[in-house]
Amino acid sequence: MGLAAGVDLGGTKILAALIDDNHVVVADKKVPTPADGPESVVEAIRTAVEALPERPDTVGIGAPGPVHDGVVKIAPNLPGWDRPVPLAEQLSKALGLQVVVDNDATVGALGEFVAGAGRGARNLLGVWIGTGVGGGLVLEGRAYRGSFGGAGEFGHMVVRQGGQRCNCGRRGCLEAYAGRASMERAVSTLVAAGAQTALTRIAAEKNKSQLTSSVWKRALSEGDPIANQLLDEAVSAVSIGVANAVNLLDLDRVVIGGGFAEALGQPLADRIAEAARPYVLVGDANREVVVAELVDTAGVVGAAALARRG
Amino acid sequence: MGLAAGVDLGGTKILAALIDDNHVVVADKKVPTPADGPESVVEAIRTAVEALPERPDTVGIGAPGPVHDGVVKIAPNLPGWDRPVPLAEQLSKALGLQVVVDNDATVGALGEFVAGAGRGARNLLGVWIGTGVGGGLVLEGRAYRGSFGGAGEFGHMVVRQGGQRCNCGRRGCLEAYAGRASMERAVSTLVAAGAQTALTRIAAEKNKSQLTSSVWKRALSEGDPIANQLLDEAVSAVSIGVANAVNLLDLDRVVIGGGFAEALGQPLADRIAEAARPYVLVGDANREVVVAELVDTAGVVGAAALARRG
Repeated sequence: MGLAAGVDLGGTKILAALIDDNHVVVADKKVPTPADGPESVVEAIRTAVEALPERPDTVGIGAPGPVHDGVVKIAPNLPGWDRPVPLAEQLSKALGLQVVVDNDATVGALGEFVAGAGRGARNLLGVWIGTGVGGGLVLEGRAYRGSFGGAGEFGHMVVRQGGQRCNCGRRGCLEAYAGRASMERAVSTLVAAGAQTALTRIAAEKNKSQLTSSVWKRALSEGDPIANQLLDEAVSAVSIGVANAVNLLDLDRVVIGGGFAEALGQPLADRIAEAARPYVLVGDANREVVVAELVDTAGVVGAAALARRG
Repeated sequence: MGLAAGVDLGGTKILAALIDDNHVVVADKKVPTPADGPESVVEAIRTAVEALPERPDTVGIGAPGPVHDGVVKIAPNLPGWDRPVPLAEQLSKALGLQVVVDNDATVGALGEFVAGAGRGARNLLGVWIGTGVGGGLVLEGRAYRGSFGGAGEFGHMVVRQGGQRCNCGRRGCLEAYAGRASMERAVSTLVAAGAQTALTRIAAEKNKSQLTSSVWKRALSEGDPIANQLLDEAVSAVSIGVANAVNLLDLDRVVIGGGFAEALGQPLADRIAEAARPYVLVGDANREVVVAELVDTAGVVGAAALARRG
């Protein structure tokens, strides 16, 4: 097969790329994500794909929400996507091409599997640490979707029953301890109680209203105690999730990605691996925890690979 | 294909059965498990299979430990199985037949999938609550083995980080709260501290040195507060494990089996489902938590199905 298009549908931007059968990005096109609902988004994806220098044979999309049979069930980060959207069908009609859609975390894991830090793995979990904590699975060499499109909700595995309140409303999810949203909330609480941290100063210097991954990176490199303490708690929670996934699925590769992992690199993956080790029942020297390699392109590469596999 | 033999290799007995291609047991043979090491066990399995009224075309075995490529890596409940045993190869030579081996919990899940409470499911977790808590997965319609033969260690998913000590030496595993071994230990602690419970009286009446599932059943039916409290804690821990597995794998069926489930039946499965519900991120009306149906034959039926599938 020749060229496939991969589309990464995000909350703020849509990235469409033309990918060859060696998983190499040969051209791409970025457009902002329309905020006025599914119809405009479908139109924007069509425009982006048609703006690519060649017409692809097939199109794959990673969408930010649970996806079942080409239908995006809900996408909390996209305005107006509060009901199921048959994205594959609508785009297939608009483009006159086969279109497959899957969850962005699953698609990202597949991208790393075919062309990044997951090459050569058999059973892989991708952990995406950004605002929240997402997960995607490739099992026995195939993207794993689950029964109703909801697989990979790694961030909402409960690691401390009755623990801290999570953004999802439940208690003790690992995302209650890890990811920028929870960690920033913890910083606010500590600062309100009078604690001093380099995080707020660095954010002000960088003119950031939020604690971005690069703010965290700088504070950690300065040895800020609060940044270190909260990273330890995040690593601890994520590592229990990783150990639980390994105990259940006997994975051979865990890929740590997302903005946080990009900023902190392999040392973050090593820290997670070390913290997980005591909780893994059946260890194996061939099991690896590695940082993601593809960064911005895991989504489009994975989406194109998904499209080729049908 | 005609007849397959399924073998359930347990700590005290070996059950070999002849299974037709409708997954029906047409004959079986039970022998005690030799306690003097792998060679005698291989010989006992050979004898049991050859004692069946017809010669099978293929043989499947469920073994009590992690299995990788036909090799039982370790089997803590079998004396002398403290090093890898190439069971498939040895039995294949002894019998002159194709032999496949997998972990007993996985094989049991496959048995329920092909012929029991898992019929019609796509992604299934079998939870076996007996002395400990085991797990087996059937994903996308196939027994899931993992990368190194260690998949399905459901009982050692951590649900309360830093929590109670587990038999495996770690803290906060769900098996630290559920399964007869942990629950009996909790009873001993409470009784030593002066608590009164019907459990010890019923065990004495039944002439049991241990709190068997039937002892628990009777105490629960009498409304014993300690039995109820410990069952609640066990259900709570198991339900977090179930929710975590569902969040990660988006399963459509969870089958609850093992001695405890046999004694308590569907009400136990319902209790686990209800306790898990608040922790499941993406609910679905078609997801079911049901009690196992095959009881004693899940292992042999699953092992035979595995053998047919190769």
